[in-house]
Amino acid sequence: MRLTSLLSLLTGVAIAITAVAAVPANALEVFTASESNVPNAGPARPKNIIIMIGDGMGPAYPTAYRYFKDNPDTQEIEQTVFDRLLVGMASTYPERSSGYVTDSAAAATALATGFKSYNGAISVDINKQPLTTLMEHAKSLGMATGIAVTSQVNHATPAAFLTHNESRKNYLDIAQSYLATGTDVILGGGQDYFSQDLLAQFVAKGYEYATDKKSLAKAKSPKVIGLFAPVQLPWAVNNKEGLQLSQLTKKALSLLSQQEQGFVLLVEGSLIDWAGHSNDIVSAMGEMQEFAASIEVAEQFARQNKDTLVIITADHNTGGLSIGANGEYAWHPEVIKNVKASPDSIAKQLIDTEAWLSSFTQLVGFEPLDSEWSLLLKAKEKGLDDFTLAISRLIDKRSGTGWTTFGHTALDVPVYATGPGAKLFFGFQDNTDIANKIFSLLPKPEMIQDTPDKGAPVSEL
Amino acid sequence: MRLTSLLSLLTGVAIAITAVAAVPANALEVFTASESNVPNAGPARPKNIIIMIGDGMGPAYPTAYRYFKDNPDTQEIEQTVFDRLLVGMASTYPERSSGYVTDSAAAATALATGFKSYNGAISVDINKQPLTTLMEHAKSLGMATGIAVTSQVNHATPAAFLTHNESRKNYLDIAQSYLATGTDVILGGGQDYFSQDLLAQFVAKGYEYATDKKSLAKAKSPKVIGLFAPVQLPWAVNNKEGLQLSQLTKKALSLLSQQEQGFVLLVEGSLIDWAGHSNDIVSAMGEMQEFAASIEVAEQFARQNKDTLVIITADHNTGGLSIGANGEYAWHPEVIKNVKASPDSIAKQLIDTEAWLSSFTQLVGFEPLDSEWSLLLKAKEKGLDDFTLAISRLIDKRSGTGWTTFGHTALDVPVYATGPGAKLFFGFQDNTDIANKIFSLLPKPEMIQDTPDKGAPVSEL
Repeated sequence: MRLTSLLSLLTGVAIAITAVAAVPANALEVFTASESNVPNAGPARPKNIIIMIGDGMGPAYPTAYRYFKDNPDTQEIEQTVFDRLLVGMASTYPERSSGYVTDSAAAATALATGFKSYNGAISVDINKQPLTTLMEHAKSLGMATGIAVTSQVNHATPAAFLTHNESRKNYLDIAQSYLATGTDVILGGGQDYFSQDLLAQFVAKGYEYATDKKSLAKAKSPKVIGLFAPVQLPWAVNNKEGLQLSQLTKKALSLLSQQEQGFVLLVEGSLIDWAGHSNDIVSAMGEMQEFAASIEVAEQFARQNKDTLVIITADHNTGGLSIGANGEYAWHPEVIKNVKASPDSIAKQLIDTEAWLSSFTQLVGFEPLDSEWSLLLKAKEKGLDDFTLAISRLIDKRSGTGWTTFGHTALDVPVYATGPGAKLFFGFQDNTDIANKIFSLLPKPEMIQDTPDKGAPVSEL
Repeated sequence: MRLTSLLSLLTGVAIAITAVAAVPANALEVFTASESNVPNAGPARPKNIIIMIGDGMGPAYPTAYRYFKDNPDTQEIEQTVFDRLLVGMASTYPERSSGYVTDSAAAATALATGFKSYNGAISVDINKQPLTTLMEHAKSLGMATGIAVTSQVNHATPAAFLTHNESRKNYLDIAQSYLATGTDVILGGGQDYFSQDLLAQFVAKGYEYATDKKSLAKAKSPKVIGLFAPVQLPWAVNNKEGLQLSQLTKKALSLLSQQEQGFVLLVEGSLIDWAGHSNDIVSAMGEMQEFAASIEVAEQFARQNKDTLVIITADHNTGGLSIGANGEYAWHPEVIKNVKASPDSIAKQLIDTEAWLSSFTQLVGFEPLDSEWSLLLKAKEKGLDDFTLAISRLIDKRSGTGWTTFGHTALDVPVYATGPGAKLFFGFQDNTDIANKIFSLLPKPEMIQDTPDKGAPVSEL
């Protein structure tokens, strides 16, 4: 009886509660909180791994997104892709010398290498020595690798997955270093950091270079570099017709899945963080919507390719976003939904206009009160930054949105997963654990039959 | 080979990764994110259930507590009991008529009954009709029930578990109604709401009445009501010698575990919320420390009594607490640790004193700068509330703590569990799901052999 029940469970056959109840508690308690990560409960190994990072996406972002997407005319509040995939949470603190609040570089180093380092570090340790990244290790195993991001491709998060540098600020060095990494697919912003000479070197190495929707659609080589903006991509909320992260994700998957040895793809919703830094809830929700759409692309791919693990997290929390503020027990996402463009774009459109009140009303979706006009007028006189922030603060006030900082906080971040190996990520973990679990899911060298693009052996793994 | 591997897994024997890789992915993916709550993966049923609620304990509280407890002289950051037990998160929104931000009453109604209701509701629906609570159902099954809280025992959270009322504000009604509930153990504050006459009625029903450490220690009856303060218990940080929640939890467990049919105990760290409402990080960390100690008591009980489920969550997030604020990438828990008493108690001690600067320095653990003195002096002149808040804000500034509201926010809250049934709570869920899962873990009426204290049948279950 016991054996039958256990085998039924493992082969996915439904068993009645009464039968399960007859099995001793411990036999079925494979995944209590403290045991969820036990290695001997090990998963089948994925062939492909899609790592998705919502930069700055602390837990208030997916919660807010649920209510932002809610249709108030129905009784139910629908679950989002985040709700469907939640498995745990992760701590994000950097190496002790940098305190408890991480930056994107140290966090990405932890997620890419399994080691803590100082804020600013791009996959180097506190002695500035390189730390082996997941992408390097995957390459050494003959797997394909790629990134699809909305920041410049040489920004901290993708940089820590692809290269090493003592400082995230060395953008040109970082861009140059990508040439030697053998990364198959590089999609995002950053034209300003790639000279014609550097791009020619990429092309000489067999890369197709794409700069827009059309050239990306045509690209078919195993190796593609696509740079679609001088620095970061436009805010999703302003970019309805342009290339969006979900499209980059789809293309990256289509290119990488040609490779027989499997792939590791990093997808980053980079600008969630930028919206948080600006305390801009309109752009934050726009970026969340596009990041959710990208996760749905990955989820769909994983449904069709059951050997694919999708693991999603954030590197840290940005802005101290809160859903409800100033004593009011309310949040009004309809205010945010009615705004037609990002506050910085509204400010830019109106800063040099004398008669702007009706345009403003049309763009933000409500008519400000006298007291609100007065604040806006004062801010507009001070200049673009003040005007932008005043617009954001007005939307905050009307929607009940709160912020505590233009920087980061130490709050734990959510972890989502689906596919083979997903259960390794259940419960609480440190961000370095996430990398170590992914390393453990990559094939052992002896499992590789043929490694055409094999890099140097990685001695420390 | 495959069968051997599966049996090895189930008997806890470590198996080589290569052997696992031979097992088809789906066979081992018992708990992917979307499947973690599948009923046919059901647990052994617990005999005892300990429900623990950190009132207002959004995810920033346990994260902050980790860093608050960290010893900066060691390289590692130690995990807390929260980290050890994390299994998922929960949404907290009330019934649609109350928007997205819940109060404690609607949240406790959801957690106690599995139904959404309006803010203010004590286990009644939007038509003010009673909703069956977990405690009533447990009673009807002959189980013992109890509460141990740091607020008055008739405050919103315990009230929604024990009784029904159209408004949480009807404190006297609520206290009176407890008499008929048959609740076995009632421990907390609230002497002001229980007249001598009402207490005499409790005693006539067989309750022992305790008012302090000594009388509680002596209490041995199955039925005990203990009220240890006029309203709420003192802040943990000011109450080193007094009765604390961990002691109430220990006593409640000792009393309830005498009962043969098992028990349901609610433990609430009520004042985490009150500290959040006051934007008081010193008291918040003190309450978190005591709530953690209470969880450790429950965890220890569950280790010794393997038929005990401990399920821990929060009703909502209070204050919009953030760990890091105002653009600084830093949080300084040592500032908080050095404060000797709660800000309100410091303010009370010094408000009527003319020469208070050295006492203040001694109590807060640092010597304020001129600009800080100036703010404190102005606030002290305005009165106790302003002085208290100015002290809190000064500690915030020095520790890098941020807040967005004196009220609640809609942020999802963490869920922790251990013991039989714990895996039902993995992943994302609504607060009503938590109640429904607990209902599903209570015995079916036909499983009860003997129901000495059986209440009325609960028709709607």
